[in-house]
Amino acid sequence: MSVHAVRIVNIVESLLIGNDEAAEVNRARLKAAGVLTVNLMSSPGAGKTTLILRTIETLGDRARLGVIEGDIAGSIDTEKVLAGGAGDAIQINTGGNCHLEANMVHRALGDLDLGKCDVLVIENVGNLVCPTHWALGEHLKLCLVGAAEGHDKPIKYPQIFAVSDVIVLNKIDLIDHVDFDRTVFYESIQALNPGVPIFEVSCRTGEGLDAWTNWLLDRLAMLRKEG
Amino acid sequence: MSVHAVRIVNIVESLLIGNDEAAEVNRARLKAAGVLTVNLMSSPGAGKTTLILRTIETLGDRARLGVIEGDIAGSIDTEKVLAGGAGDAIQINTGGNCHLEANMVHRALGDLDLGKCDVLVIENVGNLVCPTHWALGEHLKLCLVGAAEGHDKPIKYPQIFAVSDVIVLNKIDLIDHVDFDRTVFYESIQALNPGVPIFEVSCRTGEGLDAWTNWLLDRLAMLRKEG
Repeated sequence: MSVHAVRIVNIVESLLIGNDEAAEVNRARLKAAGVLTVNLMSSPGAGKTTLILRTIETLGDRARLGVIEGDIAGSIDTEKVLAGGAGDAIQINTGGNCHLEANMVHRALGDLDLGKCDVLVIENVGNLVCPTHWALGEHLKLCLVGAAEGHDKPIKYPQIFAVSDVIVLNKIDLIDHVDFDRTVFYESIQALNPGVPIFEVSCRTGEGLDAWTNWLLDRLAMLRKEG
Repeated sequence: MSVHAVRIVNIVESLLIGNDEAAEVNRARLKAAGVLTVNLMSSPGAGKTTLILRTIETLGDRARLGVIEGDIAGSIDTEKVLAGGAGDAIQINTGGNCHLEANMVHRALGDLDLGKCDVLVIENVGNLVCPTHWALGEHLKLCLVGAAEGHDKPIKYPQIFAVSDVIVLNKIDLIDHVDFDRTVFYESIQALNPGVPIFEVSCRTGEGLDAWTNWLLDRLAMLRKEG
């Protein structure tokens, strides 16, 4: 085997402006309403909607969960979370846009009954890249990863792991069927975002959902105490 | 259970211009060189790099495979495909950009030795949305999906399935461990893109790789016959 030089073409990203003010308006409104708001980001198929459904179920009477569903197309997820007991839910169809933006959330908040929500989960479009750059007005950024996606995702998509306030590793029931190296996964996240909480769950078996949900309730109590 | 009305906020996408001319320049150059070029698109963690490695292995002496690797960061995939026998390979780091664009590929082609490639695979950034909108100069768009992502991906991300020339369903060794409904998957693709070829493979077990690779060789022969 010969040694190959790796040649790299670096292309600098363009700057984003303007979205942050709209996000601040949303954030203040949600805080005033005492609604802890989570921007849920992941690859397509990591299990965002299923995590929402299982979180509603695990929370039970302890807190009501509202949902803003962001999708390219369709309203199947909003139907699912309303059927699954969400306090209120609204669908945003981005018509091809690869991420939600603060003004879209602002419009959705105009239609959402915040009086029926203690926690609001904004399910972003499935995408590990673009949502990272757009604040929505959330109090917490949650990065969800499915075990079948591989332990190298923090290395390949570092920004989302660096900016997230909490990371959930889902589908741990599949860990024995895929080559997932927990040490690499944890160490690469630690390097990008030291001390960030990481929860392992299986939405299929229910494993780990209590710990995740209790942490979320603690964060809700903190937000309301600050308020 | 009460019936809930689903409220939808539709946001119209903005138009993209300018990239297509650069793509045509790339496409003509690649065709003149007799190099069948595939734009490989998928979610993060669907197994793009592993499919490339297994395709190189299965092609053996029948065709040399070149690779352009698009990533947010890192060069681990380029190292892997060169070690795995790629004819030549080059890394593009997008510095945060969520998709490759034709001008990035144009720059990479300046450094790539096309004389060592019969087939060129351009591994796009892991993203089921943005790459759809950007022609690179490819002859074929390939959409790769991992079974663990779920059978509903064509419904949730319709554009990529609609524009692809071939679809590969990977990780079929996991099908028994996840709730994957083949009927829904196939029917929804058929509705979006009638007659598009779909290959089922497991890069882990090797199942299905011969059929996929033989199809690719047929397409290479067709390109050269047209030429």
